[in-house]
Amino acid sequence: MSEHFSALFSPRSVAIIGASEDVTRIGGRPLRYLNEAGYEGTVYPVNPNRETVQGYKAYASVADLPESPDIALLAVPAKATVEAVRSCAEKGVKAAIVFSAGFAEADEAGAAAQKEMVAIARAAGMRLLGPNCLGVFNSSAKFYGTFSVVLDEEFIQPGPVAIVSQSGAYGAALADLARNRGMGISQWLTSGNECDIDIAEALKYVVQQPETRVVMAYAEGVRNRDSFIEALDTARKLGKAIVFMKTGRSSVGAEAAASHTAALAGSDAVFDAVLRQYGAYRARTTAEQLDIAYAASFGIYPKGNKIGIFTFSGGFGIQMADDAEENGLKVAPMPADVQAELKALLPYASPKNPVDATAQAVTDLPLMTQYMRSMIERGGYDIFSAVLQSGPNSKTYGPRLIEALDAATAGAKDLVKAATMSVPREVEKQFEDRGFIVHEDGSALMKAIGALNQFRESFEQAKVRKALEPMQKIAIPREEVSEHAAKKLLSHAGIEFPHEELVAPDGDVGAAAARVGFPVVLKISSPDIAHKTEVGGVVVNVRSEDEAREAAAGILARAQDKVPGARIEGIVVTPMIGQGVETIAGVSRDPVLGPVVMFGLGGVFVEVLKDVTFRAAPFDVDEAHRMIREIRGYSMLEGVRGAEPSDVNALAELLSKLSRFAAAHAEEIEGIDLNPVRVMPKGQGVKVLDALIIPRKEV
Amino acid sequence: MSEHFSALFSPRSVAIIGASEDVTRIGGRPLRYLNEAGYEGTVYPVNPNRETVQGYKAYASVADLPESPDIALLAVPAKATVEAVRSCAEKGVKAAIVFSAGFAEADEAGAAAQKEMVAIARAAGMRLLGPNCLGVFNSSAKFYGTFSVVLDEEFIQPGPVAIVSQSGAYGAALADLARNRGMGISQWLTSGNECDIDIAEALKYVVQQPETRVVMAYAEGVRNRDSFIEALDTARKLGKAIVFMKTGRSSVGAEAAASHTAALAGSDAVFDAVLRQYGAYRARTTAEQLDIAYAASFGIYPKGNKIGIFTFSGGFGIQMADDAEENGLKVAPMPADVQAELKALLPYASPKNPVDATAQAVTDLPLMTQYMRSMIERGGYDIFSAVLQSGPNSKTYGPRLIEALDAATAGAKDLVKAATMSVPREVEKQFEDRGFIVHEDGSALMKAIGALNQFRESFEQAKVRKALEPMQKIAIPREEVSEHAAKKLLSHAGIEFPHEELVAPDGDVGAAAARVGFPVVLKISSPDIAHKTEVGGVVVNVRSEDEAREAAAGILARAQDKVPGARIEGIVVTPMIGQGVETIAGVSRDPVLGPVVMFGLGGVFVEVLKDVTFRAAPFDVDEAHRMIREIRGYSMLEGVRGAEPSDVNALAELLSKLSRFAAAHAEEIEGIDLNPVRVMPKGQGVKVLDALIIPRKEV
Repeated sequence: MSEHFSALFSPRSVAIIGASEDVTRIGGRPLRYLNEAGYEGTVYPVNPNRETVQGYKAYASVADLPESPDIALLAVPAKATVEAVRSCAEKGVKAAIVFSAGFAEADEAGAAAQKEMVAIARAAGMRLLGPNCLGVFNSSAKFYGTFSVVLDEEFIQPGPVAIVSQSGAYGAALADLARNRGMGISQWLTSGNECDIDIAEALKYVVQQPETRVVMAYAEGVRNRDSFIEALDTARKLGKAIVFMKTGRSSVGAEAAASHTAALAGSDAVFDAVLRQYGAYRARTTAEQLDIAYAASFGIYPKGNKIGIFTFSGGFGIQMADDAEENGLKVAPMPADVQAELKALLPYASPKNPVDATAQAVTDLPLMTQYMRSMIERGGYDIFSAVLQSGPNSKTYGPRLIEALDAATAGAKDLVKAATMSVPREVEKQFEDRGFIVHEDGSALMKAIGALNQFRESFEQAKVRKALEPMQKIAIPREEVSEHAAKKLLSHAGIEFPHEELVAPDGDVGAAAARVGFPVVLKISSPDIAHKTEVGGVVVNVRSEDEAREAAAGILARAQDKVPGARIEGIVVTPMIGQGVETIAGVSRDPVLGPVVMFGLGGVFVEVLKDVTFRAAPFDVDEAHRMIREIRGYSMLEGVRGAEPSDVNALAELLSKLSRFAAAHAEEIEGIDLNPVRVMPKGQGVKVLDALIIPRKEV
Repeated sequence: MSEHFSALFSPRSVAIIGASEDVTRIGGRPLRYLNEAGYEGTVYPVNPNRETVQGYKAYASVADLPESPDIALLAVPAKATVEAVRSCAEKGVKAAIVFSAGFAEADEAGAAAQKEMVAIARAAGMRLLGPNCLGVFNSSAKFYGTFSVVLDEEFIQPGPVAIVSQSGAYGAALADLARNRGMGISQWLTSGNECDIDIAEALKYVVQQPETRVVMAYAEGVRNRDSFIEALDTARKLGKAIVFMKTGRSSVGAEAAASHTAALAGSDAVFDAVLRQYGAYRARTTAEQLDIAYAASFGIYPKGNKIGIFTFSGGFGIQMADDAEENGLKVAPMPADVQAELKALLPYASPKNPVDATAQAVTDLPLMTQYMRSMIERGGYDIFSAVLQSGPNSKTYGPRLIEALDAATAGAKDLVKAATMSVPREVEKQFEDRGFIVHEDGSALMKAIGALNQFRESFEQAKVRKALEPMQKIAIPREEVSEHAAKKLLSHAGIEFPHEELVAPDGDVGAAAARVGFPVVLKISSPDIAHKTEVGGVVVNVRSEDEAREAAAGILARAQDKVPGARIEGIVVTPMIGQGVETIAGVSRDPVLGPVVMFGLGGVFVEVLKDVTFRAAPFDVDEAHRMIREIRGYSMLEGVRGAEPSDVNALAELLSKLSRFAAAHAEEIEGIDLNPVRVMPKGQGVKVLDALIIPRKEV
């Protein structure tokens, strides 16, 4: 991969097929950019009608080129593209970018043409980007393989940000907005139809580039689960932040996305969970995506979540405290002795946190400095944030503010520094140059700092996480199995079930029930009856041998009546367990993201509130704990109204085992239901009372 | 009020006590602003040491002024303020603004001084604004009674926006941010310590001004429930939008707010509910506050929530569809025949909605116009929103876009028009001048349009809402009463309870139980036992006369044992009712906002999920319906898993009656609990199974 991606982002030579003299055309614009930016590699315009194009010597065909260029930009109409791809493949080009639309997104003929060019490229070991894309650029290599108009007026400065987007228009807009905020972008890639290279591969490449600190990504879905997850995992291991815009949250949006790129339809809730699981931040709005990428572009993450807020105005301090707490930050009070000292300096001030030095401090440089220095040196904060509003723009007071901040922060290493201000860009820059994360809006700033804190936690987790041993595979029948058989299969994953006995249809259920211990539950056992309750196949709270025999006879009769011809293995006798907190766990297959574990509380939580959470399988016990804590009704497991705390450790073990079992048998299993799972008081484990495995019909 | 507020915002004459020649000082700045803005009234600087101040003839004292000025600006230190207020009162000044800090917010001496000046003003019929405030301005009257530096470089244009803020710094920042967005502001008021005039009164005044379309408000809390609610109600009746920033959401923020302005501590959740109830929009961030005020400043509200989205890029269309749906808008498909026509024009387009005309339409003016015109004329949309990004800034394509939009929207009356674009301010303005609500960020735009839709609903409700008749007051005992007595009191409000009998301690509970009908519930009846279950005072599911007699004896014995000396009225016998959806309703007193009705589902919904909602009492049945629909578990009442829908109408009647009862007896009642309230299937009403009234100890 790396060699092809080097060709894509830092080619030593580039051919432009369909090169044009007209700098506003698709075949002219990249040439103009390469020329104006001072690209240092060799440029080969291919145009059979001209001697030169935009001052470069032109070639009649790819075959005529004096060498195999690293990359070819195909600025030819859709119908000429397959032949152009072929000529590049024959010439030994490493990678080609297809700009044209009119392929798989258009109609069947386009899809066929797309398939053909992929086959040609694959056979030759050439990689393809697009079609229907805006291409790439790498501003640190001065390479511009794009016809995006975003570079029309001004190039983009290199910097710590990378952009990877399926949508060309969105990727271009992000670049424009980032530039307006003074953010530098090195790598930029739009993947369009993704006939070959997709955003997962691109993500994995850009996060490995030393200059990249943060990636802004856009997708409507992904094509390859494994490479997508690998990219996310690589990023967090390297401490690189990914800020993701995934569209298709709403049903209308999802439908529009599905019709836009048919292959991508997966569940938005699962996609969301996977981003969280692998430490990427999912932005809800483009503004938020930019805010967080901007904050992460500083490359400094808070060591913890304690924030000190400095203000000259009570109201703004309160507002920022609200926003900080809402974003997972802790507005911890200043140490009491420091508060007393500051109060002595200015009796009307509020030195607790938010630290309100009042308008008095505006005109008093030593006082202002003392307040800030006390917060930074003795407050024990991981983050220092000041509310400055238009102050820095004041001719008299602005320079004093900077002086005070310089003095107060001089010795502060590892401190995340932030400030709100409403000032011209050049004033903001003075603060940014001092390492301050600056925003006009305090709420947006606190959201971004909260996101930095989440990234730090995720990076730390990635460092200590051990690789999961793949679970030993077992043979899974390719047809329905009974509950009893499903439990046996799952017990290979280390999942334990209460002791139960399977009694053949002509066996003595009464005796078995006595051995299991009253009260018991009786259930029909049949691979053909998945929903046992609905056919009267379950009797609970059976209290004697006679009752058991009678109930069993009834169950067998109803089963034969309701499901004629069902294969009846007999009656399963299990202990009746009514205690514990009712939960459910399950596995399903997302069409894109593969086996996914679902967890939720039972009853109204799942039925009314849809209070469930997902994780891609497999995952470890720590991740299972995070998953469990995500549900809204989590306090049920902590114990409410005097109930004992539940055995969340055992529950986490169960979920992790289930996930590893699901991952090992992803090809054989369509779904698993463990419902209900009763979580007993701490130390007493979980009781899985029912199990259903749905085999995959075809692979 | 009106006369004093006219003096405050449009005085014919203004005195500045402590007027200064130095235009950077508190006493110099207002004079400079009045002078530079061309204020047409008479200006009286009061300064005993000068003949003139900033070119105006100066007076040695207020007493020396040739007339009673409408307003006085007090730019004197805190310790000189009381005397200045006295001299103004004696002169017959209508309203005075006190800029100085150092009063109730500082210490007890300051609080005493504040009290004294209020007494002086009240006695003379003079109104006071402040102290500790930045004052007011009214740009349409060219009156500037403020020393805020926000006007230092540039005045603010008159316009449809008003700003009312407790915090001077926040109010000034809002004015600055609004100006940066090109919004005009007529009235601006900051209320500081609110020793007399508070933001409620100010709100009520500004919403009545014809030029005001929208108010941005900031508060940490309010002082007067009735005038605050009256202000909100006046606004919605006049169709004026209020966009509110209320700080103190988090516990840290609430604590900081409480220490900032001690008198204001009310519940944030109740404040939130009151804003919703009376149609004000509570912004979560300052950016959101500005976005929504900006959209409302156009004064055009959508007739419904159907939105048509026009885009040249699939990705942006999907994103906007997500955002629209998330904000209560309906991305309804285009009529099938229109889709077919558009598809025929451009086979690769997506004409459903979002309508993606593809990049093809960018260069094809007739095509682009036809697409937009079809959406606007035949789509049936209330809102038209276009994704234009940097397009309007293009020299070749920008003018075409405007031409197409002009042609397409020419006949569209009542249509809310919106667009996203990332362009310089002067280009935005071209669209605004055509009535387009413009934003760089699509998510922020959709949130603002969603808010407009909410405002429209609220304005419509205000038009049809009938005044609530006050409920007839009854005598409420000022001490605890038994459940039985509480039910009797509540039945005066028309609240019905299942038939029950109170049996004296020596009466025959068995016979009463037989009359009520088995199974029954027995409960101790005592004004001294509020929590009956905790003392063993309740026995449920009693099935025979003998069982009833035995249970009653047990209850009486336990009550005497656990609560010695309790006044025992006897045993209440009620029917046992287990059906219906369990809910709870209650009344509590918010320290600021008075009697408040709470509603929630019972069980885990209230205990684990805190899924409750509030309304200030009283309210009508329609409002009760909105309240009920707000809870997250609402679908429980619609019927889940095949259950019948519940009698929500009866529930709404109950809540409205409860609210009217609470309002009528606000002085006598501290709280009411109806728990549980079982909501039976539709048509079968509600069963209130328990009632508790907590009287107010002191008024």
